[in-house]
Amino acid sequence: MKIIVDAFGGDNAPLEILKGCAQAVQELGLEILLTGRKDVIEKVAKENAVSMEKMEIVDCPDVIDMNDAGTDIMRSGKNSSMAVGLQKLAEGAGDAFLSAGNSGALTVGATFLVKRIKGIKRIAFAPVMPSADGCFMLVDGGANVDCKPEMLSQFGLMGAIYMKKVMQVQNPRVGLLNVGTEEHKGGELQHGAYALLKQSELNFIGNVEARDVPDGAVDVLVADGFSGNVLLKTFEGTAMMILHKFKAVLTKSTKNKLAAAVMLKDIGGLKKTMDYKEYGGAPLLGCTKPVFKSHGNADAKTFYNALRLTKAYVEGNVADEIAQSVASYKARTDAAKEDA
Amino acid sequence: MKIIVDAFGGDNAPLEILKGCAQAVQELGLEILLTGRKDVIEKVAKENAVSMEKMEIVDCPDVIDMNDAGTDIMRSGKNSSMAVGLQKLAEGAGDAFLSAGNSGALTVGATFLVKRIKGIKRIAFAPVMPSADGCFMLVDGGANVDCKPEMLSQFGLMGAIYMKKVMQVQNPRVGLLNVGTEEHKGGELQHGAYALLKQSELNFIGNVEARDVPDGAVDVLVADGFSGNVLLKTFEGTAMMILHKFKAVLTKSTKNKLAAAVMLKDIGGLKKTMDYKEYGGAPLLGCTKPVFKSHGNADAKTFYNALRLTKAYVEGNVADEIAQSVASYKARTDAAKEDA
Repeated sequence: MKIIVDAFGGDNAPLEILKGCAQAVQELGLEILLTGRKDVIEKVAKENAVSMEKMEIVDCPDVIDMNDAGTDIMRSGKNSSMAVGLQKLAEGAGDAFLSAGNSGALTVGATFLVKRIKGIKRIAFAPVMPSADGCFMLVDGGANVDCKPEMLSQFGLMGAIYMKKVMQVQNPRVGLLNVGTEEHKGGELQHGAYALLKQSELNFIGNVEARDVPDGAVDVLVADGFSGNVLLKTFEGTAMMILHKFKAVLTKSTKNKLAAAVMLKDIGGLKKTMDYKEYGGAPLLGCTKPVFKSHGNADAKTFYNALRLTKAYVEGNVADEIAQSVASYKARTDAAKEDA
Repeated sequence: MKIIVDAFGGDNAPLEILKGCAQAVQELGLEILLTGRKDVIEKVAKENAVSMEKMEIVDCPDVIDMNDAGTDIMRSGKNSSMAVGLQKLAEGAGDAFLSAGNSGALTVGATFLVKRIKGIKRIAFAPVMPSADGCFMLVDGGANVDCKPEMLSQFGLMGAIYMKKVMQVQNPRVGLLNVGTEEHKGGELQHGAYALLKQSELNFIGNVEARDVPDGAVDVLVADGFSGNVLLKTFEGTAMMILHKFKAVLTKSTKNKLAAAVMLKDIGGLKKTMDYKEYGGAPLLGCTKPVFKSHGNADAKTFYNALRLTKAYVEGNVADEIAQSVASYKARTDAAKEDA
């Protein structure tokens, strides 16, 4: 399997990206096609003694910045490492594309260069997040601020397929993020999405309150990109705040430090389950081919995890399954219309 | 000061409500006017030896249930303890009204019985939440699922006045909840609200990401009721999940239990800063007179805290200040229109 990697995406590019790739070549048996400035990549690899085994480079001069507008990728950024990588994926030069760069640009680029699966309204950003005893997928985590009911219904379908094919969750529970569990809760968007999800073939468990999500109430949480992003970032911010307060307690006095030392391994385990770096990033769902986004501040370990998940995304054949589901849904509703 | 209290609101009514009131009479010097079934209140007080000193009762037969629709308060629930309490507040029988009952019904009842301040578009639910080194106010936490820019701008104004007058925060920092900090982020609602907040006299610090809120980025967080509710409940759910995981570590083995015992007091302190019961509940902002909502599962301690905060709400003269601000804003914009 060959993964195309944006060597210049994120805050720690290219060194941490290269290190993550080298580890993935060794441990996951991947081949890597890097996009970015060839001279810089080779220099950094050499200076830091990072092996370039099974890695090729496609030389391209530009980089999409975190401050660039998403649409820049189709204009001033069309020769960037991100745009060229997506183009290479569209051409079939690799099995997936992975970047830690600008999310907005990646969504726009994936939409216009890799294209959406036929029938899919919007590409969604779908992070897998930790919960009490496992994890759940949030769709959409922020790619689409303004949504329509049909988009939310498709988010549920795509998330369910990912959780089944990649995360091996049988019959994933799909819930709609809402301000209460009763069917009438929320606004027009939620009412419309509820109706569509209810009549779908998904294992739709109804409305879910944000309070119950970290406790493991769902496998797939459907939301518009605005409130989904609020949930994602509130989760991160709250976890970070509490872990800091926790750390302050453990290091408050010599007495506490000694007591904490006894539990060091278990505390490390707790921290690990809350650490988004373990999760590596998020797939973009709805593209014709796998595109994966790693964290902007990804270090080598995070990027390696992202490569591991990208590999699983490819092996899960998610895009094909989504395409088939959308096509068969269309066939069913067309037939129903003819019957009517 | 006399507080009107819904003796039948919430899961633990009337006993825990009565206990909280008795403590507030003793410690805060309050008088209490209870609404609810007189025979039941007197029986429960007697059986549990709760002093009824400085408490009167307005006998009313019905109760608004947690499952009732909000609008029921104006129809089948018009003789409920909540509706009668709000009516008594409107008539001037007390200085504020406090209930742990159905939030939707309380918002509808406050709007139609106590009425909105002239010029205020919507009554908002405004919980004060813990952050890294203090607290912040969220407006709106869930009363208004569908919002317009002007409503959000008024949420900012009302929250700033509350934080200044009740919580003694000088020049409170007002931020708009958004998916990024740049001015162009978000949808139409955020763009409109941003423009209004920017031209207001508030200390508007711009867009705020949910990730930075628990760290203390704002004193007043402005949001539509849907995403505000998602933030509020994600915060609660995440905190609960992490504290459970933390507890599991501390009790995992005898070794850990012994080590935890050393830090018991500090861990208790940490838990306390994260405990919503310390915060008692949330004011409804925008009513002509103070209405306060306590948690549905409030126990005596939570209800006592809610009474303490209701007292501060009354003393802060918040409603008058909001009325003056709205009137002077209207005068300014009217004058500007005439000049133009």
